Amino acid sequence: MSDRDDYTSEIRPGERVLDRNPASADDARICFIGEIRTPWGPQDCPRNIGSARQSGQGARIELIEGMGEGLEGLAPGQPLVVLYWMDRARRDLILQAPRHTEAPRGTFALRSPNRPNPVAMSVVLIVSIDARAGVIEIDALDCFDRTPVVDLKPWHASIDSPAELPSGRNP
Amino acid sequence: MSDRDDYTSEIRPGERVLDRNPASADDARICFIGEIRTPWGPQDCPRNIGSARQSGQGARIELIEGMGEGLEGLAPGQPLVVLYWMDRARRDLILQAPRHTEAPRGTFALRSPNRPNPVAMSVVLIVSIDARAGVIEIDALDCFDRTPVVDLKPWHASIDSPAELPSGRNP
Repeated sequence: MSDRDDYTSEIRPGERVLDRNPASADDARICFIGEIRTPWGPQDCPRNIGSARQSGQGARIELIEGMGEGLEGLAPGQPLVVLYWMDRARRDLILQAPRHTEAPRGTFALRSPNRPNPVAMSVVLIVSIDARAGVIEIDALDCFDRTPVVDLKPWHASIDSPAELPSGRNP
Repeated sequence: MSDRDDYTSEIRPGERVLDRNPASADDARICFIGEIRTPWGPQDCPRNIGSARQSGQGARIELIEGMGEGLEGLAPGQPLVVLYWMDRARRDLILQAPRHTEAPRGTFALRSPNRPNPVAMSVVLIVSIDARAGVIEIDALDCFDRTPVVDLKPWHASIDSPAELPSGRNP
């Protein structure tokens, strides 16, 4: 699902590149709040979070100095949304041909790391928290070691699960 | 939940400000891929996506030129993750005292728009898609009209719902 083998500079048949590379835009700027420590590198990174969990290997988020206080109020066992920056991604692909799809597909219909803004989203479980040290242990994550973190948020079923379309508006 | 009344410059008792404002960082740069059209302004914006849905008012995402192809492969009725940039947020608050919590709480334990990187995440439903025009109608969204969009992703229950902690590692 996370198409880890798609960190590539090669353009495959049916793929399309944007005229203007989003990497040159400067509409807003990101502060990396920390990094994710995992056992994974490009060679052995699990293809999705399910596989990362099955490996039995946990992960750890280490925040930069001063950010640890921001963890106050989170609790072990709670689900957490992690937004992180896939810093090896290609940002100018708008149609992509991953190996697992038959036809090329739009970037916004894929979870590929290659996208105009390579912000990945994962829902993990908090195993333990040390707010003083700015460290949070999580159940697993399918990203490379030292991937930069953009944001952490509490996950809430009521707002983070999709509603059903009212029947009158169904396709 | 989204604490819309917390777009404020006032510091409340118990709140804490970072020594270095993340707004001055430049670790990565964002390209706004489009904007969200809603009926809402600062005066009447619903407090969460549930209230936005109950209003019966839909919303629309308008992508910038060239990005529409990225919608190919998405379908009406499908849940979509929308990442957007809360451009009026304060970025230097690390402990916050929203009106709905008793004690101050860490920014990463809140869904407040005020955070080091003000990237909001919502799960919406696709009502209709016009890839050629780069327009996607969605069921609802609780953000101000013309909020900038950072990313769109298909939502998958298997990866975007939390797993359960293995019993041996429960707190």
